[in-house]
Amino acid sequence: MAVGQTDFPNMPPISGIQIGTTNAGIKQTVRDDLLIFQFSETATCAAVFTQNAFCAAPVVLARKNLTQSPRWLLINSGNANAGTGEQGMQDAIQTCDDLAKITSGQKQHVLPFSTGVIGQSLPVEKIKIALPKAVANFSENNWKNAATAIMTTDTFPKGVTKTILLNDETITINGISKGAGMIQPNMATLLSFIATDAKISQPLLQHCLASATELSFNRITVDGDTSTNDACVLMASGCSNAPEILENSESYQIFASAILDVMKALAELIVRDGEGATKLMRIVVSEAANDAEAVQVAKTIAHSPLVKTAFFASDPNWGRILAAVGRAGVVEMELDKIRIYLDDVCIVRNGGRAEDYTEEAGQAVMNQAEILIDVKLGRGEFSQTVLTCDFSYDYVKINAEYRT
Amino acid sequence: MAVGQTDFPNMPPISGIQIGTTNAGIKQTVRDDLLIFQFSETATCAAVFTQNAFCAAPVVLARKNLTQSPRWLLINSGNANAGTGEQGMQDAIQTCDDLAKITSGQKQHVLPFSTGVIGQSLPVEKIKIALPKAVANFSENNWKNAATAIMTTDTFPKGVTKTILLNDETITINGISKGAGMIQPNMATLLSFIATDAKISQPLLQHCLASATELSFNRITVDGDTSTNDACVLMASGCSNAPEILENSESYQIFASAILDVMKALAELIVRDGEGATKLMRIVVSEAANDAEAVQVAKTIAHSPLVKTAFFASDPNWGRILAAVGRAGVVEMELDKIRIYLDDVCIVRNGGRAEDYTEEAGQAVMNQAEILIDVKLGRGEFSQTVLTCDFSYDYVKINAEYRT
Repeated sequence: MAVGQTDFPNMPPISGIQIGTTNAGIKQTVRDDLLIFQFSETATCAAVFTQNAFCAAPVVLARKNLTQSPRWLLINSGNANAGTGEQGMQDAIQTCDDLAKITSGQKQHVLPFSTGVIGQSLPVEKIKIALPKAVANFSENNWKNAATAIMTTDTFPKGVTKTILLNDETITINGISKGAGMIQPNMATLLSFIATDAKISQPLLQHCLASATELSFNRITVDGDTSTNDACVLMASGCSNAPEILENSESYQIFASAILDVMKALAELIVRDGEGATKLMRIVVSEAANDAEAVQVAKTIAHSPLVKTAFFASDPNWGRILAAVGRAGVVEMELDKIRIYLDDVCIVRNGGRAEDYTEEAGQAVMNQAEILIDVKLGRGEFSQTVLTCDFSYDYVKINAEYRT
Repeated sequence: MAVGQTDFPNMPPISGIQIGTTNAGIKQTVRDDLLIFQFSETATCAAVFTQNAFCAAPVVLARKNLTQSPRWLLINSGNANAGTGEQGMQDAIQTCDDLAKITSGQKQHVLPFSTGVIGQSLPVEKIKIALPKAVANFSENNWKNAATAIMTTDTFPKGVTKTILLNDETITINGISKGAGMIQPNMATLLSFIATDAKISQPLLQHCLASATELSFNRITVDGDTSTNDACVLMASGCSNAPEILENSESYQIFASAILDVMKALAELIVRDGEGATKLMRIVVSEAANDAEAVQVAKTIAHSPLVKTAFFASDPNWGRILAAVGRAGVVEMELDKIRIYLDDVCIVRNGGRAEDYTEEAGQAVMNQAEILIDVKLGRGEFSQTVLTCDFSYDYVKINAEYRT
C-alpha cells in the first residue's frame, strides 16, 4: 500500500550510461535482482554511504574503490552481504573481479552494492553465472528495469527524471531509488543511483551530492532504523554537449538545484512507499533557534509510535504531537510560544488546545492521505522539513513476516 | 495481553497510610478512577517527575507543593490534565482546594496527579462530588483498589510488597504502578506510588528515590515516548517501631536496596503489560566503556521497530539487532569485538553470524515469552540492563483506537 503512488515516468536515456539487468535467482522470484551500470571513460562518480558503524562489506569496498575512478556499479537485491564477516568481504571482491573479467576491466573500478536480508552469505556463484546475461543486456534505455531490479519490500519502482538547459544545451538527470523499511538514512538512503550526462569534476560532483543528500534523503524516516547498506551514487557521464560545470558558476547553481529536486522527489517516493504506509506526513518545524533543533524536533515527532499510530487511525490526537515536541530535548523551550497546525488548522496555541479548534476541523485534515504537521517553536528563524509515514497493522505484518 | 502476568500480591497495610478510592465518572467505566492517599503527620514524602518539557499542570503543582510537607496525594485516571493551558493549572489547584476543605487541611499540602487522555479539561465538578466518597472509604487495607483505580490501558493492577528487618523491627514497603504505553520514563514512570512505615528524613528519602528511579523506571521502555505526566512518589509514614534511618548507616543500605527491589519489580510489571506485548526482552549491554554508552546501545535496540517486530514474530533476525547496535552512535566501536547472545546462544561473533550458530538454536530461544538479549561490546567493564517488550498488531490497534 503506497500513499499517492505515481506511475513510473518515461525516463530518457543518459548518453554514456549503459544499464544491464537480469535474474540471478538470489531472491527466488521471477523479478530481476542483478543490475549493472557501466559508464563512459569520461564519467565522474560521487557517492555517500551509511553512517551505521557496522556497514556491510560492499559498502566498505565501494567506499574504498570510489577513489579509483570507478566505471561500473554492480548491484544485487535479495541479500545485503552484511554481518557476514571476512567471508563477506571476500565475496564482495570476488563479484567485482568476476564482472571485471567479462568487461575487460579492473576489479578496483567496480563499486559493489547489496540490499536485502542481513547475515546470509552472498551467493557468488549465482551472481557469476548471471553477470554475462546482464552485460549482454546493456542499453541506455533500461531505467525502469533498473528501478525494478533493486526493489526489496518496495511495492513500486521509483524513478525521477528532469532536464535543464545549460548554455542552451540540454542536460538530463535520471534517478532511481529503493527502500521502504529500515529507513532513517544518515548520509544516504538504502540505495539510490542518479545519472546525468553533464560534465563535472569528481570533487565538485561529490560536493553537490553530499549537499543535496543532507536536504533530501537525510530528511526522511520510516522507522528510525538506519541500514547497514545505505548508499547513494551520482554518476556524470560527461557525454552532453554542454561545457564542463565549474565551481561557483551559475551553471553549478542550476545543476545543483536540479540534482536536489531529483533527490527530494526520490526521497519522497521512498516515504510514500514506507512499509505499511497509508499516510504521508510532511513535518515542518519553523521558528527554531537553529537548523539542528528544528531537525531534532521534527524527527522526534516522526519517530513517535504514538503519533504514527494516531495518524494511521486518522485521530487528531494533537496531545501526542505536543508530548513528542516536549521530549525532543530542546532546552528552555517555552510551551506558551508553541503553535502547532495540521494543514491550516491551528491545534495548539497558548500552552494548550487552540481556543478556536474543533474536532471536526481536525478530523477533516486527518482524513486526508497527505498531511502537513506545522510546528512553530517561537525561538528563532530556522526551519527544516522531515517526511515520514504512519504506522499501521501492515508495518507490523511486513516486518514480522519478512523472512518467512 | 501481558507477558507472564502474576496475581496481585497480598499487600499488608502500611501503618499511617490511609487510602480511599471511588468512581468519579471521569472514565465512563464502572472502575474506580479517583484515589487519595493520606499520610500521618510524622510522614515524609519524596517524588520524581517527568522531564518532558511540557509537563502537565498537576506535575507543575505537585513539584511545587512537594516542598510544603505534603499530607495528601490526589490522583485521577481517565484525564491527564495536560496541554490544558492556564485553565488546567486552575483546575488542578481547585481539586486540591476541594480536598483540603473536606479534610480540614491546606491545599498546598496536596500533591495532584492525573493520567489519561491529553488535552481535555479536567472534570473538576465530578471530582468535587466524588471526593467525600473517597475520603469516607479511607482504610489502610485498600492497596488493590488503589492499584486498580490508577489503571488506563493497563490490563492488570500492579503491586509489589516487601518486608525487611531493621534493628529487629519489621519495615513494610508497598508499591503500586500503572503504565502500558507512552513509556520511556525519564526520571519516573507514568505513575507509581510507594509507601513504607519507615522513619526517614525527607532529603534522605528523596535521595533514595532518585537513585532507585535511575536503575528501575529509567531502565524500561515500551515505545520510547516520554509522558507529560510521569511521576513516582515515595511516602514514609514513620509509624513503625524501628528507629529513624540515618544517612550512611547500614540500615539505609538495607532500606535503599529493598526500595530498589520494589521499584525494579514494579518497572518490570509495566513492561510485562506493555501495550500489545507478547514478549519480555531483557537487554543487557556489558563490556561498555561507561554506563552511558551501555544504556545508549541497550535503548537503541529496545526502540528499534524492526527488532521489536522480529521478536513479535519469534524470528531470530539477529541482523536487525546488529544493525541497531551499529547505529547507536558509539564512536570507534569495533565490529570484530562484538558478541551477541540470545539467552546462551551466541548469534554474532567475529564480525558476523557466529560460526556455530544454528537457526534451530536461535528459534528455540525466540519461541520463549521471556528472552535475554546479551550484547558484549568488548570496550570496557561497564554493564547496564534495559527492559522492553515486542511490537505487535495489538500495539497498533490499542493506539489507533485509543480515543474511540
